[in-house]
Amino acid sequence: MKNITIIGIGLIGSSIARDIREKNNDVIINIVDNSNTVLEKSKKLNLGNNYFEEISTFIDKTEIIFICTPISAYRSLFEKLNKFKLSNETIITDVGSCKTEVIKNAQNILTKNIKFVPAHPIAGTEQSGPESGFKGLFNNKWLIITPCKNSDDKSVKIISNLWKSFGCKIQIMDMNDHDSIMAITSHIPHIIAYNIVGTASELEDNLKEEVIKYSASGFRDFTRIASSDPTMWRDIILSNKEPILKMLEKFEKDLNGLKNAIVNDDKEKLFNIFDKTRDIRKRIVEEGQDVKEPNFGRKNQ
Amino acid sequence: MKNITIIGIGLIGSSIARDIREKNNDVIINIVDNSNTVLEKSKKLNLGNNYFEEISTFIDKTEIIFICTPISAYRSLFEKLNKFKLSNETIITDVGSCKTEVIKNAQNILTKNIKFVPAHPIAGTEQSGPESGFKGLFNNKWLIITPCKNSDDKSVKIISNLWKSFGCKIQIMDMNDHDSIMAITSHIPHIIAYNIVGTASELEDNLKEEVIKYSASGFRDFTRIASSDPTMWRDIILSNKEPILKMLEKFEKDLNGLKNAIVNDDKEKLFNIFDKTRDIRKRIVEEGQDVKEPNFGRKNQ
Repeated sequence: MKNITIIGIGLIGSSIARDIREKNNDVIINIVDNSNTVLEKSKKLNLGNNYFEEISTFIDKTEIIFICTPISAYRSLFEKLNKFKLSNETIITDVGSCKTEVIKNAQNILTKNIKFVPAHPIAGTEQSGPESGFKGLFNNKWLIITPCKNSDDKSVKIISNLWKSFGCKIQIMDMNDHDSIMAITSHIPHIIAYNIVGTASELEDNLKEEVIKYSASGFRDFTRIASSDPTMWRDIILSNKEPILKMLEKFEKDLNGLKNAIVNDDKEKLFNIFDKTRDIRKRIVEEGQDVKEPNFGRKNQ
Repeated sequence: MKNITIIGIGLIGSSIARDIREKNNDVIINIVDNSNTVLEKSKKLNLGNNYFEEISTFIDKTEIIFICTPISAYRSLFEKLNKFKLSNETIITDVGSCKTEVIKNAQNILTKNIKFVPAHPIAGTEQSGPESGFKGLFNNKWLIITPCKNSDDKSVKIISNLWKSFGCKIQIMDMNDHDSIMAITSHIPHIIAYNIVGTASELEDNLKEEVIKYSASGFRDFTRIASSDPTMWRDIILSNKEPILKMLEKFEKDLNGLKNAIVNDDKEKLFNIFDKTRDIRKRIVEEGQDVKEPNFGRKNQ
């Protein structure tokens, strides 16, 4: 690998740059971002070799193109990339949290011979921007690949091996399964966290001050989740509407049952609801999914 | 202080025992718990001097009685305590997460001369049992006192100073304010976390396995909150119904607005909802309420 391009240099893009530089000092890293401020920050952090506000002819020489932008930018990126004579050796890949919408756009826009490997690393923090990324963010995390018509076996293997070199465990998955699972494990938790913090942010000022003061009792954890990048999350939610709305409906129905149990002083029902949830927690701890993350929230490399 | 009693030796009660022993090796610590298994564990952990399944005459000699049981046990405890000739120097205090219901019961049951100082430390982990407590749990945490008719100034001062010696910051507060604030910062977050984990626990088995595998993307944080002791939380929720139901109504209304924004592809509204929540987070971080807790989840002292 001699030449790679990262489009969108935020938390994930900059962590990829850092991991690649760590493994290979000679690879040329091209960084593309439509924000000049962000490009300047990246230069100061010495994340790449070349910095561009727009894709241009340099893209012909690149072997792997990582799309790390919000999902709403993908369509126009695919259209631009489609116009360049990408070499047969070039692979486009991404890191987006939804896959069916992404793949639909890719297959509609990219010509058949262009290689695209849709991917999603289950890693991140609530921070954003190139200064928030760090070496090792992906270590021991899952990388899900949801192959599409534009993904040939060789390209999937190259992308898998690259993420393996960052420390990832690889899972190949159907795009619809991916989106249903992410709706539950990631998108709904974010929606709920945004909603509860939103509800609190509309309280009268004096009550809001007290909420901040005593936030350690549970609320604080929701504010961490709800401080994630709003553009990125708007795009994720709107790109995965169907599974999200289906799960939200179940959530609301269950919440209504729980509310009725409170209204009716139904001790047994409440105990059962609060007790059955322990099993899933136990399994998560057993499977080592609740490890402390030493770098969590680190501000720079 | 020569003789204290802790009724209910779980996470909080055992942490109090450890902090008291740390400061004063000579004080006699009486431990009362209606579970023999829990008493045996406490003996092995060497948490006290005397162990009882029931309150008996030893209580006459004790200076401070900490009630650290689930709130549903309070009424019968107040009735029992009322029958003993407690000395003028004896103060009953508690650690319950709701105060109006507790104070109503205390004032109905306890005779006027019995001293009761309602208190609530904003500290804890999702663990339960005497093996989960640890020295220093309360260090740099808030201790809220909500005085009632049975709390004279001297008793409030004694209880304040004791918690200060554990490292607490003290706040005196009206019981209704306390319960409204806790509904938002603690009770609703727990209800929502229990609800979302409950919704997930009803999924088909194969999907549930995937949810566990990829829980690191947000869901995991909810399972931690939702693994708290179910009896304790059933009691807390049922003792603070009115503020909780009021806030749940707001939450549901906001969630409905958010859902409509998703259905209608309302990018601007979604962005605004996801953006406004960052301000509260910023304030929480600024006020130092998001410190890492080195002992969090530790299994023993």
